[in-house]
Amino acid sequence: MAKVVRIALDAMGGDHGPSVVVPGAAMALDRRAELAFAFFGDTRIIAPLVDASPRLAACSTLRHTDVAVRMDAKPSQALRHGRRSSSMWLALDAVRRGEADAAISAGNTGALMAMAKFCLRTMADVERPAIAAIWPNLRGQSIVLDVGASIGADARHLVDLAIMGSAMARIVFKLDRPSVGLLNIGVEEIKGLEEIKAAGRILREAALPNLSYHGFVEGDDIGKGTVDVVVTEGFTGNIALKTAEGTAKQIAQYVREAMHRGLMSKIGYFFARRALDQLREQMDPRRSNGGVFLGLDGVVIKSHGAADAVGYAGAIEAGYDMVRHELQAKIRQSLALSRESKAVAQPANSAANSF
Amino acid sequence: MAKVVRIALDAMGGDHGPSVVVPGAAMALDRRAELAFAFFGDTRIIAPLVDASPRLAACSTLRHTDVAVRMDAKPSQALRHGRRSSSMWLALDAVRRGEADAAISAGNTGALMAMAKFCLRTMADVERPAIAAIWPNLRGQSIVLDVGASIGADARHLVDLAIMGSAMARIVFKLDRPSVGLLNIGVEEIKGLEEIKAAGRILREAALPNLSYHGFVEGDDIGKGTVDVVVTEGFTGNIALKTAEGTAKQIAQYVREAMHRGLMSKIGYFFARRALDQLREQMDPRRSNGGVFLGLDGVVIKSHGAADAVGYAGAIEAGYDMVRHELQAKIRQSLALSRESKAVAQPANSAANSF
Repeated sequence: MAKVVRIALDAMGGDHGPSVVVPGAAMALDRRAELAFAFFGDTRIIAPLVDASPRLAACSTLRHTDVAVRMDAKPSQALRHGRRSSSMWLALDAVRRGEADAAISAGNTGALMAMAKFCLRTMADVERPAIAAIWPNLRGQSIVLDVGASIGADARHLVDLAIMGSAMARIVFKLDRPSVGLLNIGVEEIKGLEEIKAAGRILREAALPNLSYHGFVEGDDIGKGTVDVVVTEGFTGNIALKTAEGTAKQIAQYVREAMHRGLMSKIGYFFARRALDQLREQMDPRRSNGGVFLGLDGVVIKSHGAADAVGYAGAIEAGYDMVRHELQAKIRQSLALSRESKAVAQPANSAANSF
Repeated sequence: MAKVVRIALDAMGGDHGPSVVVPGAAMALDRRAELAFAFFGDTRIIAPLVDASPRLAACSTLRHTDVAVRMDAKPSQALRHGRRSSSMWLALDAVRRGEADAAISAGNTGALMAMAKFCLRTMADVERPAIAAIWPNLRGQSIVLDVGASIGADARHLVDLAIMGSAMARIVFKLDRPSVGLLNIGVEEIKGLEEIKAAGRILREAALPNLSYHGFVEGDDIGKGTVDVVVTEGFTGNIALKTAEGTAKQIAQYVREAMHRGLMSKIGYFFARRALDQLREQMDPRRSNGGVFLGLDGVVIKSHGAADAVGYAGAIEAGYDMVRHELQAKIRQSLALSRESKAVAQPANSAANSF
């Protein structure tokens, strides 16, 4: 039997807290038997929920705390009030102390990243962590990063993002050499892209064994699925992610309205209902729930705050996969290889400027 | 009868050249009688097309040139080879010389912007021009700028974008005080947003009469239609625009596939066809064709390169509206008012940093 993967859960995080986290864990356990859980939060609420599932109870430990990070807490507030005491912190600290292999939280992203940086620290040789999102596209899925951990990036950081994202892509998509594109705009010869150009030069010259550098990609290449990994700094990545979410909702609304406009459409909807339900499922964000924090000294998965148990189970499974397939070791290896490369060791001067 | 609006047309621009530009002009003339056209390009091709429509011929002049800017020409190449001779340049130059009120081109965006800056210069007191796109949303449409004219923006430039975008919104949406939002990411207290914060402070304190400052908006607010004008610097704006286009195509493809999966869906499609056709029309980019160049000393409209005659006519009508409703005067007035405001005259120090 494979070694058990120990997951630390911030049971109080997210819009629904334990009422989603506990059933989510039970669901994940149904699909991956080699799991053990440590729940952090209000045991008065958690214990009865866990005890309701004897199988879950058998592989779970509970640790009580009254402190929970609020969903609207600013990162600085969260650190001030929740450090060393909140369910979020305790879950991260379990990873730091080696008592858990990964931490999962549906709590607020800014607070979780701030605490994770403080508690786990960044990986040696990584300046700044990143958040990677799994993005559905016409050819399947891709990984887009950074979607909001930090703003701006010099060439070195963009190269690190490429390396971390492709390590994750090797696991999620089971690929040897994921293709990587740097997000850019089509207008050539425009000023200000020096760091992206420099990163492209480095990635091309370094010819790293674990990723295949594709070149620049534009915004519409994300939906097309032109590459497995799309690399950009956190401001643009966050705007792109939210813009795509907004567009998807907008068009779903258009389709809904179109299918209920007039009798003929309603008849059409009746017949096409199953296909449209499948479509909804295809676009269901729960299918790829779990932003992966990359570059920290430990595996941390951010579940969507509004996720239900199915979505939360997906985030747990993402954590499981990252541990089982050794995300951290893969990142460290690729980083080490890249540091040996002359191209990465001596970036162009222009690469030092952030934008 | 209202004063005639004189439009200079780069007849060779776009994927289809005169075969779209000439019928597009004829179509625009059907809808707005007070139009006159100057066609620039290969008269051997243009003349027979124009002469086929006596009404169009009656209000058109033709000027021959053999030089056309290639769709894949880099801006520097276009300037080197096409300055003072290309159809694109001649159309812009007609505006500069006061012989036309607006120039329209479906040629390549980078080349057109480079030539427009060189030929027309920026408006006094505007540092950099911008490209504004009309973006469909759940509540109608909004204007998003800058979608790619320049990268990075300090607080002053963001304020100018807000002013120019709202001047355009007053015309396009017939509003007295369009609402304006600054595109930002939700994560608070993150570093690097100083220029956006400073721009927000300036817009709030200046309380300009012709725009209503809403505050920050996120990527998903664009599709929701939270504000009339979304302001961001050109790199992010371009990525957001292309990402949304990619997502729209992706979902349209999903819907198409869903409606052809199995007999029931096909029957459903048969009944819902009309509604889905209407939906396609609703999402038709031709309905809002025409990127408007703002901040230049003259009205310039960029038609989509792949636009057909209907789309091209839309771009001409956009130019007509901008002239008729005095876009340039509106921008100048608002800029002057903003410069009188203490808040704009003395931006915070941090506002000086571009990102």
